[in-house]
Amino acid sequence: MLLRDLGEWDLLRRLAAYAPPGQLEDDAALISPAGQPLVVNTDLLVEGVHFSEATIGPLDLGWRAAAANLSDLAAMGCGTVVGLTVGLVAPGTTPWSWVEGVYDGLGAALKRYGGTLLGGDCSGGQQRTLAITALGRIGPGVIRRCDGQPGDWLLSTGPHGLSRLGLALLLNELPAAQASGLSDSLRRRAIEAHRRPLPRLDAVEALAASRPPATPWRVAGTDSSDGLAAAVANLARASGCAAELRRQDLPIDPELARLPQGEPWCLAGGEDYELVLAVEPAWGEALLTALPGCSRIGQLLAPTPEGAAGWLRWQGSGEPLDCGQGYTHFSAP
Amino acid sequence: MLLRDLGEWDLLRRLAAYAPPGQLEDDAALISPAGQPLVVNTDLLVEGVHFSEATIGPLDLGWRAAAANLSDLAAMGCGTVVGLTVGLVAPGTTPWSWVEGVYDGLGAALKRYGGTLLGGDCSGGQQRTLAITALGRIGPGVIRRCDGQPGDWLLSTGPHGLSRLGLALLLNELPAAQASGLSDSLRRRAIEAHRRPLPRLDAVEALAASRPPATPWRVAGTDSSDGLAAAVANLARASGCAAELRRQDLPIDPELARLPQGEPWCLAGGEDYELVLAVEPAWGEALLTALPGCSRIGQLLAPTPEGAAGWLRWQGSGEPLDCGQGYTHFSAP
Repeated sequence: MLLRDLGEWDLLRRLAAYAPPGQLEDDAALISPAGQPLVVNTDLLVEGVHFSEATIGPLDLGWRAAAANLSDLAAMGCGTVVGLTVGLVAPGTTPWSWVEGVYDGLGAALKRYGGTLLGGDCSGGQQRTLAITALGRIGPGVIRRCDGQPGDWLLSTGPHGLSRLGLALLLNELPAAQASGLSDSLRRRAIEAHRRPLPRLDAVEALAASRPPATPWRVAGTDSSDGLAAAVANLARASGCAAELRRQDLPIDPELARLPQGEPWCLAGGEDYELVLAVEPAWGEALLTALPGCSRIGQLLAPTPEGAAGWLRWQGSGEPLDCGQGYTHFSAP
Repeated sequence: MLLRDLGEWDLLRRLAAYAPPGQLEDDAALISPAGQPLVVNTDLLVEGVHFSEATIGPLDLGWRAAAANLSDLAAMGCGTVVGLTVGLVAPGTTPWSWVEGVYDGLGAALKRYGGTLLGGDCSGGQQRTLAITALGRIGPGVIRRCDGQPGDWLLSTGPHGLSRLGLALLLNELPAAQASGLSDSLRRRAIEAHRRPLPRLDAVEALAASRPPATPWRVAGTDSSDGLAAAVANLARASGCAAELRRQDLPIDPELARLPQGEPWCLAGGEDYELVLAVEPAWGEALLTALPGCSRIGQLLAPTPEGAAGWLRWQGSGEPLDCGQGYTHFSAP
């Protein structure tokens, strides 16, 4: 059995057997030493798989690598970034200026969000690869995928699909007629979303600030790096719930929504690095007020024989919603 | 300027500018949250650079990857292993059985030394690569490279050069006459040292247990993964000392010492994963008793105009000792 036949999800399922039960269920791992719990997360970025020089320069790549990791910390409820370690693999023919750009980008993200470069390792190799491990401290409370309950509102901290549009623009994927019809503002925001995503550590703060008095801390959440629909499905599955999304309230830019790709990219474009949260309605309402750009996208449901845990449907029609599997690794040789 | 022209040491020096001063000076990074300090360390293992299928199977590779990281934790004074995150890059043509073997090896090391698989990431890619991040908790006290003082004894927790001999045997590098003259016992121990190195977390315990009453905690140390001489030089440099080694007391197997490669491999073979420690003489004497296999190899000296910080010489002759730079990455395209 080769990895390309196994596929990424089955591989991850098999690897989970090496960790304590449930350990790999969340966006990152929780470590609870005496004192304030820490969160640790490792992400890989491989050239030709996760990035290409054609679409992202070293400065943006460094930023994006840090942002993707910090987004996983935010998804666990981190209020403070401790820092990053960086494993860098690159061929000897790589210019120093490229490495410098990547570290400048990493440094810019750390400057904005806190934390330091903690350490790392370098090696020669055929393919440029970044292995980033981020460490953070839990803020007001832990956010886990499994803490949702039927009736919880599903909230998205921001729009989805922009990063995928940005990638399409950078790759010249759009038909010319379509591309030329886009406003400059949307083009700029889409490319920015792809190159300079913003991890939503601010949303964790807003979440804490908007908690209604006497409501205990219970927040389910994940980030949407693998796509909005996958995020909702993963959260629902881990919480033992089904979920419904409100089609008319998808968190999508109105101009992007007019493209035929708009809705699919909103649901499965990926790399938007927003948070998808499930909280009880009163808290959800307060968060909508506290966090501009945050929107209600649906709710969690009790599972039924027709709608098992992790099953998604459109509110109203009840039509099932196919969220695909997102990008699958190992299919290339 | 390309990385192959820059070289590994200059690259590391430049990258250190992105971290707080001194942050990248040690084997691993110290994080001090409220409570017990944590240590974090990231290592890369790239196929064709750090390992090849010809010399190491997946089970041993997983063990060695974990052991190399845990060795860095031991070198910082960790008493407890929290766990590992694993970033795995592999082509889609990689058999699942290889991945399974690697994780079995990682799991075996965690079972022996404590800690769990905390998380990780997987990706397709051209070259098999493991990016391992280990987390541990400081035990009785922190060990840093910079805490040595002139007059401290230099100690090695075990023999050096065996791992390099093991590699030579596995690669059939030795002239036939030389190879056939080796005892079975040495061959077995050398191959074992290469494939299944043992991180010296036990030495940290012995160090604590042997501290003379009323002696404050002050231990300088590093592991010898880059070679014994490089370890001594790095420790001496960080401590602002020169150092002398006792040639007749090099920590080397007597049979290996009879080979012409014996002394060079002892000094610069690398990957022995022992600890090199500097403590005051009374503590050193107590540790020699407490830790079988530990030996006194030399001492730290005050720097002089002829013998600046980091300078190594042979005791007695005063002849300088060239420790080379060890393995240098990025020289291949």
